[in-house]
Amino acid sequence: MADPRFFRAAGPLTLREIARLASAELDGAADPARPMKDVAPLEAAGEDDVSFLDNRRYLDAFRSSKAGACVVAPEYAEQAPKGMALLKAAKPYRAYALVARAFYPPSPRQEGRHQTAVVDPTAQIGSGTAIGPGVVIGARAEIGPDCLIGANAVIADGVVIGAGTDIGANAFLTHCLIGARCQIHAGVCIGNRGFGFAMDADGILDVPQLGRVILEDDVEVGANSTIDRGAGPDTMVGAGSKIDNLVQIGHNVRLGRQCVLVAQSGIAGSTKLEDHVVVAAQAGVAGHLRIGKGAQLAAKSGVMRDVPPGLAVGGAPAMPLREFFRLCTIWQRQLKARGKPDD
Amino acid sequence: MADPRFFRAAGPLTLREIARLASAELDGAADPARPMKDVAPLEAAGEDDVSFLDNRRYLDAFRSSKAGACVVAPEYAEQAPKGMALLKAAKPYRAYALVARAFYPPSPRQEGRHQTAVVDPTAQIGSGTAIGPGVVIGARAEIGPDCLIGANAVIADGVVIGAGTDIGANAFLTHCLIGARCQIHAGVCIGNRGFGFAMDADGILDVPQLGRVILEDDVEVGANSTIDRGAGPDTMVGAGSKIDNLVQIGHNVRLGRQCVLVAQSGIAGSTKLEDHVVVAAQAGVAGHLRIGKGAQLAAKSGVMRDVPPGLAVGGAPAMPLREFFRLCTIWQRQLKARGKPDD
Amino acid sequence: MADPRFFRAAGPLTLREIARLASAELDGAADPARPMKDVAPLEAAGEDDVSFLDNRRYLDAFRSSKAGACVVAPEYAEQAPKGMALLKAAKPYRAYALVARAFYPPSPRQEGRHQTAVVDPTAQIGSGTAIGPGVVIGARAEIGPDCLIGANAVIADGVVIGAGTDIGANAFLTHCLIGARCQIHAGVCIGNRGFGFAMDADGILDVPQLGRVILEDDVEVGANSTIDRGAGPDTMVGAGSKIDNLVQIGHNVRLGRQCVLVAQSGIAGSTKLEDHVVVAAQAGVAGHLRIGKGAQLAAKSGVMRDVPPGLAVGGAPAMPLREFFRLCTIWQRQLKARGKPDD
Repeated sequence: MADPRFFRAAGPLTLREIARLASAELDGAADPARPMKDVAPLEAAGEDDVSFLDNRRYLDAFRSSKAGACVVAPEYAEQAPKGMALLKAAKPYRAYALVARAFYPPSPRQEGRHQTAVVDPTAQIGSGTAIGPGVVIGARAEIGPDCLIGANAVIADGVVIGAGTDIGANAFLTHCLIGARCQIHAGVCIGNRGFGFAMDADGILDVPQLGRVILEDDVEVGANSTIDRGAGPDTMVGAGSKIDNLVQIGHNVRLGRQCVLVAQSGIAGSTKLEDHVVVAAQAGVAGHLRIGKGAQLAAKSGVMRDVPPGLAVGGAPAMPLREFFRLCTIWQRQLKARGKPDD
Repeated sequence: MADPRFFRAAGPLTLREIARLASAELDGAADPARPMKDVAPLEAAGEDDVSFLDNRRYLDAFRSSKAGACVVAPEYAEQAPKGMALLKAAKPYRAYALVARAFYPPSPRQEGRHQTAVVDPTAQIGSGTAIGPGVVIGARAEIGPDCLIGANAVIADGVVIGAGTDIGANAFLTHCLIGARCQIHAGVCIGNRGFGFAMDADGILDVPQLGRVILEDDVEVGANSTIDRGAGPDTMVGAGSKIDNLVQIGHNVRLGRQCVLVAQSGIAGSTKLEDHVVVAAQAGVAGHLRIGKGAQLAAKSGVMRDVPPGLAVGGAPAMPLREFFRLCTIWQRQLKARGKPDD
Repeated sequence: MADPRFFRAAGPLTLREIARLASAELDGAADPARPMKDVAPLEAAGEDDVSFLDNRRYLDAFRSSKAGACVVAPEYAEQAPKGMALLKAAKPYRAYALVARAFYPPSPRQEGRHQTAVVDPTAQIGSGTAIGPGVVIGARAEIGPDCLIGANAVIADGVVIGAGTDIGANAFLTHCLIGARCQIHAGVCIGNRGFGFAMDADGILDVPQLGRVILEDDVEVGANSTIDRGAGPDTMVGAGSKIDNLVQIGHNVRLGRQCVLVAQSGIAGSTKLEDHVVVAAQAGVAGHLRIGKGAQLAAKSGVMRDVPPGLAVGGAPAMPLREFFRLCTIWQRQLKARGKPDD
């Protein structure tokens, strides 16, 4: 069971309710009226818990799990331990997500403004919005309804935040327009001056950064990530994009819809990612490039050229992933050939 | 036009004034008395805006731009659309920077200390300095005149900050001496204990880190970057150096003047960078090395040895960039040769 | 001498006391009653200072040092300058650490709660704990005795912190249990929602992250690092592990005891590191892997497979370090062979 110090479960739910929520097919042998109390990982689950199998690596754990019920792809159903109620779903991870969300719905916000918050009198705060201790909100800022502004977060003058958006503790937002239902985690910095300067023998001269950061709806930005404002154009993040921790997004970058940027990746200035691009961990993309729709950049790849839609690339400098794997094979072969291919 | 929620333009300025500010040559056909209202990117600029062309990639945008005036290198002047007033400059980006700075001068500071700031009575605060809400300033700290200390920033005991320096929201400064006109962005941590410990079979034992961080004048440190204090010697950053977001600088590192460290790069302990070194994004430099004046470390390079002055290196482990490019060519050739060079 | 604005030395100590503290052998020629006032690096040390030599690179500095005494490995003793008192130790860096800790013991905490701190009435605070300005501590949090909670840090509801632990300024802790004597530096974010979501043609759906972060005793976490809470299982960091700045640890990761993660490294979700694993700077480890006891991952390595105990690996994708070095040699040879191995 999730630690009650941090989580409050909303169950029980019957197997019938669970199957309906997850759009899963309940195994014939199971009692649809059976109540389940919680969700749990395969190894920790007991008879009142719903678990899930999504990754072949955990098939052994599935076979020996004591979970009362399990969301599983139909092809693994036969390997279930005896007595486990099966919730068969074509996309078990998505189905499990729906179940877990039913057991652990988001906490309701407690509308109000902590007495230590410093909110400029010209700021507009929507109804149902909770403002934590030590929060600072600047002049003419507009915070939508049902937002949660975490403790000691700083929202600078003029920033606009849409309905139902969460801002994490100690986050800093300036020169930006944030959509609805975004999750900005702790320590995030959005809207800082981009890294723009003229550098030559005459010295370094800062160039005013006159754009903004625009986050569309449903964007998530992980802890301590940074998104610089545009130099003239705006920096933009498309709806539904997910950005992990410690990610850097340079000025004028444009991310399409539902892009995924994994931890410690970085996108240099003025690069455009079309929709559904995945940038894996610690990958980097040079500036002024275009990454096509649905392209996938492998972990640690260093992308120096445009990537066509749908292509997976890897390596640094990046090449088509298939070629990079072949190159790795060539290296292994060279190593085995005494490491002396030229002798 | 820059969003007036975030920026206030100081124009109009005549073409004559602009040409003078930018040390640019105004095209003969243009009326020097013509007033311009703002700066804007090529695609967005209208007849009252000054734009600029600095990168060949944007030549098409230049040819079709509706900008009333444009800062441009002389060699592209012929390709300008009809009616555009040309401001010819050998260094168009620098010239544009000067124009943009005239339209958008820095906001004046509003001297004063927010009532929620906690300033130790022994701290000295210069005249004209603005201290934001929730700021904490420790004992014996010395903050120069005309500084801006952002909301919820924490300045520990004894820290010294020079005139005209900005400290971003939620930044943390300890054990450091900061020069004049520095820009320390939000979330930056300066002066933490370096990663120094004795580790062996007897366990891990922290070594006291007894040095400081010294930033000379005009240094910029990007959001959420970290600079550890020295172990005994100091960690030092030379005047005019520009450090981007999420950069790590280890204990005892010494950066020369006007070094540039791009986002997510890192310098390990006790390494010395001479003046004008450029460390591109996600590059890393091992400890105890010397990187010569004007050396350039390519993005994602992993530098394991000293680099002589002026050399560009790339790859991991890093080699002269020219060799690295040749190596990439060799790899491509091997891939084309059926991926079987040894058969 | 360490800058008295930031450090207070506790000396003097006699050579006899120093030798005893460091378990070092005092050279016969030295006077055991001679008082020493401070520690200092080789180049800066004077006659009243104790220095140390630990790295061959600094042998020249040792030979010309004016340090009154020096901790040194027996094999370098002969190269000491005349008149230097030698403290011979098999592990000079550890011995120096002990000396430096005697000269610079940790400052005593000043028990108390700053009047601007916001501490929920249901939180429990141990005796001797110092709570800085602007700190926010949530409901039912339990802070042990002799802790130091830095200015503007935010401790969310239910968090547990053990005795003698330091939390840095602007840090954020949620959904976590922290052991005793931990050092959590400024800007650290612990316990955020892991990067867990179901993504497919139907869109992106967040999966509730129902685990915690558990840090055992004596863990250090560097500035601006991030540790996500588990998805169901917990994210765990074993006792004595040292994590540097800007490190990312994904959900469900398990670190063993005394692991070392150097700056800007990252561990993806559900990976397990056994005891004493060293992850060098900017290295990355993919998800769902097992890294064996004492394995060493070189700087910038990209680990895509399990690593057996004790093995050193390097490269991206990572291979045994010995092979990676051979591969680098092969590349150099190919470059020298006209860059045309296949002709």
